[in-house]
Amino acid sequence: MPAVPSAVAVDAGGTTTRAVVVTRHGHCGQVVRSGRGNPVSDPEQAATSIVDACEAAIASGPHETNLIVAAVAGTVSRDFPELPKALHTRGMTDRLVVVSDLLGAYFSATAASNGYVMILGTGAVAARIENGQLADIRDGLGWLLGDSGSGFWLGQHVARAVAAELDCRGPSTSLTPRVIALLSDTPRRNGVRPPDLAALLTWSQSRSPMELAELGILAAEEAGHDDVAADICSRAAKHALGTLASLIRSHTDATIQPCTPVVLGGSVLRSDGAVGRPMHEALHHTALAVSDGVAGAALLAVREMGGTADDAMLAHIKSQLVAA
Amino acid sequence: MPAVPSAVAVDAGGTTTRAVVVTRHGHCGQVVRSGRGNPVSDPEQAATSIVDACEAAIASGPHETNLIVAAVAGTVSRDFPELPKALHTRGMTDRLVVVSDLLGAYFSATAASNGYVMILGTGAVAARIENGQLADIRDGLGWLLGDSGSGFWLGQHVARAVAAELDCRGPSTSLTPRVIALLSDTPRRNGVRPPDLAALLTWSQSRSPMELAELGILAAEEAGHDDVAADICSRAAKHALGTLASLIRSHTDATIQPCTPVVLGGSVLRSDGAVGRPMHEALHHTALAVSDGVAGAALLAVREMGGTADDAMLAHIKSQLVAA
Repeated sequence: MPAVPSAVAVDAGGTTTRAVVVTRHGHCGQVVRSGRGNPVSDPEQAATSIVDACEAAIASGPHETNLIVAAVAGTVSRDFPELPKALHTRGMTDRLVVVSDLLGAYFSATAASNGYVMILGTGAVAARIENGQLADIRDGLGWLLGDSGSGFWLGQHVARAVAAELDCRGPSTSLTPRVIALLSDTPRRNGVRPPDLAALLTWSQSRSPMELAELGILAAEEAGHDDVAADICSRAAKHALGTLASLIRSHTDATIQPCTPVVLGGSVLRSDGAVGRPMHEALHHTALAVSDGVAGAALLAVREMGGTADDAMLAHIKSQLVAA
Repeated sequence: MPAVPSAVAVDAGGTTTRAVVVTRHGHCGQVVRSGRGNPVSDPEQAATSIVDACEAAIASGPHETNLIVAAVAGTVSRDFPELPKALHTRGMTDRLVVVSDLLGAYFSATAASNGYVMILGTGAVAARIENGQLADIRDGLGWLLGDSGSGFWLGQHVARAVAAELDCRGPSTSLTPRVIALLSDTPRRNGVRPPDLAALLTWSQSRSPMELAELGILAAEEAGHDDVAADICSRAAKHALGTLASLIRSHTDATIQPCTPVVLGGSVLRSDGAVGRPMHEALHHTALAVSDGVAGAALLAVREMGGTADDAMLAHIKSQLVAA
C-alpha cells in the first residue's frame, strides 16, 4: 500500500512553536511544542525552534513527510533564509512552504477563501484574505512605528503610567504596586529620584524594549477596578478596532458583509479580556476567535497536498487537535 | 605674579560638546567645540569628546588650569566613570567636578540659588534648584518610559503619523512627503505593503530608535500649515508644561512665585518654535531662554574656585561668550 502523503504543519509564535503531522486526508498526529519561533526578534532562534518542532512531530508518529507548511510571523516584511538553511543543516529535505501567521490564524477559524483576520499578540496586525491569500494588510509595523493596541503597546503604556505616578506627574494607579513587585531584585540607587522610580529605570534599561510587552497583561488584570488600566485597555481596543475598520472600509466602503468571516487571534484579543471584549462587542459577537494557528497551518498543508480544504476538513482537524 | 586660578568649563550635549577656559575672575578664553557628549547613549564617545574639548580649550589660551567643571546629561541616573578614566589616560590631572546639564543650563540664565529649569532636547527633563543644587527632578526617564514632549517623542509621533497615513489608517499630512524625501536611498521591496511604507519600516529598523529624534524638527516646521503636525506639537507642549507644572505645584502648591526664575533650554524649547512658543506663553513670557549650558558651567567653575558667582559675573561671562 503506498504511503498517504503527509506534511508537518507548523505555527511559529512569539513564545511557543507548535507542530503536527497531518495527512492529505486530515489525519493528525500529536501536537508538539518548542520555543520562540518569531524570526523578527531572533531569526536563528526561530529557525532552530521550528526545526526542533518538525523533528519532534515526525518522531512522534508513523508517517513519513515530504512537505513542511510553516505559518510564521513577520514574513510579510522580511525573508526568512535562516529556516531553509537550518532544515538543510539538520538533514531535512522536505519541501518548505512558509506562509504568514495571519493565514495560519485565519484558517484555524474558517476555510472560507475570503475574509478578515486580526492578530493582537505582542504585535498588532490585520489582513484581508482573498482567494486564500493575503490581499491587503494593516499595521504589523513593529513597536516603534506601529503595533497600536498590541501587547507591547499595552506594556509600554503600563510602564509609562507607573513611571509617571512614581515621578509625581501622573495619577495613582493599582498598576504601580503590581510593577514594583516585579522589581524586588533590582538594586535601589539613592539620589534625587524616588528609589522605586530609579529601580524601574534600571530594570527597563537592562532588557530589550520588546520585553515591556510582558507588562501588558497587568493592564487587562487591573482594568476591572482601576481607571488608569481601564483607560489603557479601552484605548488599545480603539486602536485595534480602528486598524481592522480601516481595512474593511477600504475594501467594502461600508460595513462588514454579514457573511464575511472576521477572525480574531492573539493573546490580547481573548474574548473575555479587557481589550478583546469591547472588540467582540463592536463586531456584534460575530467574530471567530482562535487561540493559535496550528489548525490553519494543517488545513493549508492539506490544500497544498491536493486534499479537500473545506470547513468539514477544518472541523475534522480541530477535533483531533482538541483531543490531543 | 602668581597665576590666576583657572578652570575648564564644559557643556556636554547630545550633538555638540563645548568648552571654555575661565579664570576665578570670570575672564574667558575661546569657546571650542567637539562631538557628541551625552554619556547615556555612548559613554566612551562622550568621555572622548569631553577630553578633546578640554585639551583644545586649554591649548587655545595662556592659562594653566587645575579644575574641570563639566555639565553632563544623564548624570542624575548614572555614574560616569569613563570620564575620569579618559582624563587619566590622556595625562590630565585637573580636579574634576561633574554636574548635571540641568545646572549648566540653569546657571546660564541666572545666578539665583533657587528656581526651576526645563530642558527639552532629545530628552525632556525638569528640575528644581535649591541652594544651587538639584533638589527635585521630573521625567528625564528616557524615550521608553518618559521624555514626554521631547525631540524623540516628537520624532516618534511624526514617524507613526506618516506610517499610519501610508498604511491607510491615518489622516493625510504634509509630514509624509517630508519623511519620504529622507528615504530616497532606502530600497523599495515589492510586497503586500505600499513600497514607501516598506521603505520607512526598513529605514527605521536599520538605525537605533533614538535616531527618530531627528524627525522631531519636521513637526515644528510643518505645524504652521498642517493639522497633524500642529496636533503633535501642541501635545508635546502640553506634556512638557505638565511636567514642569507638576514640579512647581509639588513645591509651592500654587503657582510660580513671581520672582522665582524659570529657565527653558534645549532645541525643542526655542521661543519661536511650535513647542516653545506655547510654553513661553503659558509662563506669561517670564521664562528665561538659554541655548546651551557653557556659561552656566563657567559660572559654576568660578563658584568652585571661590570667585563671586552672581548675576554681574554671569553677565560678564556671557558678554565674552557672545563675542567669541
